[in-house]
Amino acid sequence: MRTLKLTIAYDGTRFVGWQRQTEGVSIQGLLEAALGRFEGGPVVVHGAGRTDAGVHALGQVASAIVGCGHEPAAILKGLNAQLPPDVRVLSVHEEDAAFHARFSARAKTYRYLVRNGPLASPFERGLAWHVPEPLDVTRMQAAAAVLCGTHDFAAFQSSGSTVATTQRTIRSSVVTTSSAATACSPSAGVAGLLLSYEVTGDGFLRHMVRAIVGTLIDVGRRRLSPEVMVSLVEGGSRAAAGATAPAHGLFLVRVDYD
Amino acid sequence: MRTLKLTIAYDGTRFVGWQRQTEGVSIQGLLEAALGRFEGGPVVVHGAGRTDAGVHALGQVASAIVGCGHEPAAILKGLNAQLPPDVRVLSVHEEDAAFHARFSARAKTYRYLVRNGPLASPFERGLAWHVPEPLDVTRMQAAAAVLCGTHDFAAFQSSGSTVATTQRTIRSSVVTTSSAATACSPSAGVAGLLLSYEVTGDGFLRHMVRAIVGTLIDVGRRRLSPEVMVSLVEGGSRAAAGATAPAHGLFLVRVDYD
Repeated sequence: MRTLKLTIAYDGTRFVGWQRQTEGVSIQGLLEAALGRFEGGPVVVHGAGRTDAGVHALGQVASAIVGCGHEPAAILKGLNAQLPPDVRVLSVHEEDAAFHARFSARAKTYRYLVRNGPLASPFERGLAWHVPEPLDVTRMQAAAAVLCGTHDFAAFQSSGSTVATTQRTIRSSVVTTSSAATACSPSAGVAGLLLSYEVTGDGFLRHMVRAIVGTLIDVGRRRLSPEVMVSLVEGGSRAAAGATAPAHGLFLVRVDYD
Repeated sequence: MRTLKLTIAYDGTRFVGWQRQTEGVSIQGLLEAALGRFEGGPVVVHGAGRTDAGVHALGQVASAIVGCGHEPAAILKGLNAQLPPDVRVLSVHEEDAAFHARFSARAKTYRYLVRNGPLASPFERGLAWHVPEPLDVTRMQAAAAVLCGTHDFAAFQSSGSTVATTQRTIRSSVVTTSSAATACSPSAGVAGLLLSYEVTGDGFLRHMVRAIVGTLIDVGRRRLSPEVMVSLVEGGSRAAAGATAPAHGLFLVRVDYD
């Protein structure tokens, strides 16, 4: 048996999320079906991150144990021939038997896009959260920087979650902006800024990135002070943080391994 | 009566094109219906360029003669409230009675996006033409530059077209590239380059930009030499040029008036 590492990009708009469910189309389900045709039998595909419905990936990683003898390049080509155009396998590599996409992951990077201006772009409908009110980006950048380091992120966890610990280590947490009109971007056409929040950490609680973004936007709108982040990561309550930002602005950018 | 100038952005993916047709949804039809509700009666909206099915706009311009007394800002807000999210009115201005979106236009700028790499991005499905073969961009840039000036563009016109003259003046004709991964672009996720061809001219023949792009790609693939452009604009035949590139990579970027 061989262990394969798959790197995958997808537009999450029309899917129920990464994870296989009884109803609706999942990315895991599509990959398992496509890989199962190579294998001639059922295959389980494990993803590094279980992205929710509407969440996208630029570099999701999945692992699968297979018996088939095809070259990785042939598997890559065969999978893409079977998958719909909103899911693309970017690479297939053979790994050690110990490799597991989720348990071997050392860090993940997420990006969240916010269109800030009076109008939503017709080209970003499922890809960026439209926030029409003016945002103070400098305040948001100060608040984002507070999250770096090891903290208790319980205030940014969905209610009802049960995990062993809510402590996580964030390596990088940065808000950047770009103007709407770039030479090669079809996203232009509307005034305003495209804000990008990018965060790298050893792990994330359920809906954590979206709760951070909701809080950053409240800081940008001056509903919360940047200092609120300090108290939130020192044992603050979920209610003291901002609302969970919508799923469709979120991208799983990259998963790092040793 | 007042003459309004509307600037409009749209994702052309699901439309039959700008122009009202007996079947299917057109951008002109949507705007006429939305403006008609302000007017309380039928309104005709004239577009600067009749974009085909699948073609997008970042700055299409339209004119309409109306009797209603609403402020332009109120019309802008009201139109966007009625229109679907893949069509946005960016601005509404009152113009002289002589203004006509099509006949007053002095220049138009189109952009065509090409994803050049082994895989198509899941985020660019309807927005860029995927060309997997390696392209020689320097050859394409040399060929694009030949088009500047006043030439006979009959070789880039759809067969069956009947226009008074096939002479047009091109002010700018440039191929640029950007790498796949930019900080704020969700288009990343695949390797390769995003090529952008941008052309400004006083007017364009039917399918002219797409025929130019098809020819540029054949130059980039080394099926045609860059010098072919010289003979094409000196009375070459349609058959000597490249095939018409698909509609979905094309954007009407801007329309200029005096």
